[in-house]
Amino acid sequence: MKISARNQILGKIVEVVKGTTTAHVKIDIRGGTIITASITNAAVDDLQLKAGGAATVIVKASDVMVGVS
Amino acid sequence: MKISARNQILGKIVEVVKGTTTAHVKIDIRGGTIITASITNAAVDDLQLKAGGAATVIVKASDVMVGVS
Amino acid sequence: MKISARNQILGKIVEVVKGTTTAHVKIDIRGGTIITASITNAAVDDLQLKAGGAATVIVKASDVMVGVS
Amino acid sequence: MKISARNQILGKIVEVVKGTTTAHVKIDIRGGTIITASITNAAVDDLQLKAGGAATVIVKASDVMVGVS
Amino acid sequence: MKISARNQILGKIVEVVKGTTTAHVKIDIRGGTIITASITNAAVDDLQLKAGGAATVIVKASDVMVGVS
Amino acid sequence: MKISARNQILGKIVEVVKGTTTAHVKIDIRGGTIITASITNAAVDDLQLKAGGAATVIVKASDVMVGVS
Repeated sequence: MKISARNQILGKIVEVVKGTTTAHVKIDIRGGTIITASITNAAVDDLQLKAGGAATVIVKASDVMVGVS
Repeated sequence: MKISARNQILGKIVEVVKGTTTAHVKIDIRGGTIITASITNAAVDDLQLKAGGAATVIVKASDVMVGVS
Repeated sequence: MKISARNQILGKIVEVVKGTTTAHVKIDIRGGTIITASITNAAVDDLQLKAGGAATVIVKASDVMVGVS
Repeated sequence: MKISARNQILGKIVEVVKGTTTAHVKIDIRGGTIITASITNAAVDDLQLKAGGAATVIVKASDVMVGVS
Repeated sequence: MKISARNQILGKIVEVVKGTTTAHVKIDIRGGTIITASITNAAVDDLQLKAGGAATVIVKASDVMVGVS
Repeated sequence: MKISARNQILGKIVEVVKGTTTAHVKIDIRGGTIITASITNAAVDDLQLKAGGAATVIVKASDVMVGVS
């Protein structure tokens, strides 16, 4: 399936921590840049996410903010 | 100000397109990876965003999804 | 690609209205229930969305609220 | 109260699972289609959500993505 | 309808600006604090929002970030 | 850092409750109005959020809904 979300970056899972209902998945999208995703435990199980696996970070454009120094 | 959003990546603005109320800002976070942010025209004006300027992409962890092939 | 978003419902596009930067896509997920998606014009072009085509509505669980009367 | 969110679908709660802070509520919006909402435990208590009760799924249009095969 | 979103603040609309598809509504929630909502033009029409009217600002807890100086 | 999010309100933290992965932070933005933020435990630790401290509530305009009675 191809999806409308404008931001899709391939990376590698470096950590999966499951909570009681919500999991945090960390994905390395390049040397040193780690993206944290907060998703359901059910999604982690369904997609069989685990450290070392390839994964794509997906973010809708309307969820991206911009900061300037 | 330091903010709670887990994902903050420094990049360079490559394009700013203003619509009637909503603007799309494209930020290069590394050679070739472009992030699109959909924000208000007012924010573009307020932060004086323009192509060539440095900017940080900010995304809350709960807005990140994960995909696997 | 398989994605972590818990809510994915197949339907049929009934309307695509493009604005200056933001488009509204209406998808019929069953007789009478229409879902409205606000996405970028770029996504509409990229996925070649048009009335009559099949499409899947995708919503992350953390973006769903619950109401009671 | 009438709210601006474009997507509001009446259904029936089929499961409520509370975590330490975050709960997952599953709502059947038609025969077989289950929507998962990730909300606070406080909201579950406040609205007295429980399996078997009627409930409305509410999603803002800007939180809806579109997928095509 | 009572909804799960934890943050609901009554205020007064001070401005409604419609774009081609997306509108910006400004709501004064106390002397001087103005909240901006980006919603669909359709919602503005449906709820008949206009300057001077009472309105409630609604935000899901998972959409709130925290900043510190 | 200055950020694009249109809604930024200074307040005082009144409660921090950490779950297994997700924390709830309550911030008083004026006499009696409490905003709840659902953020990661990691953000609470990183920003050293605790009751009594000053904090800014940050919400992107596209995450704000409007209700009318």
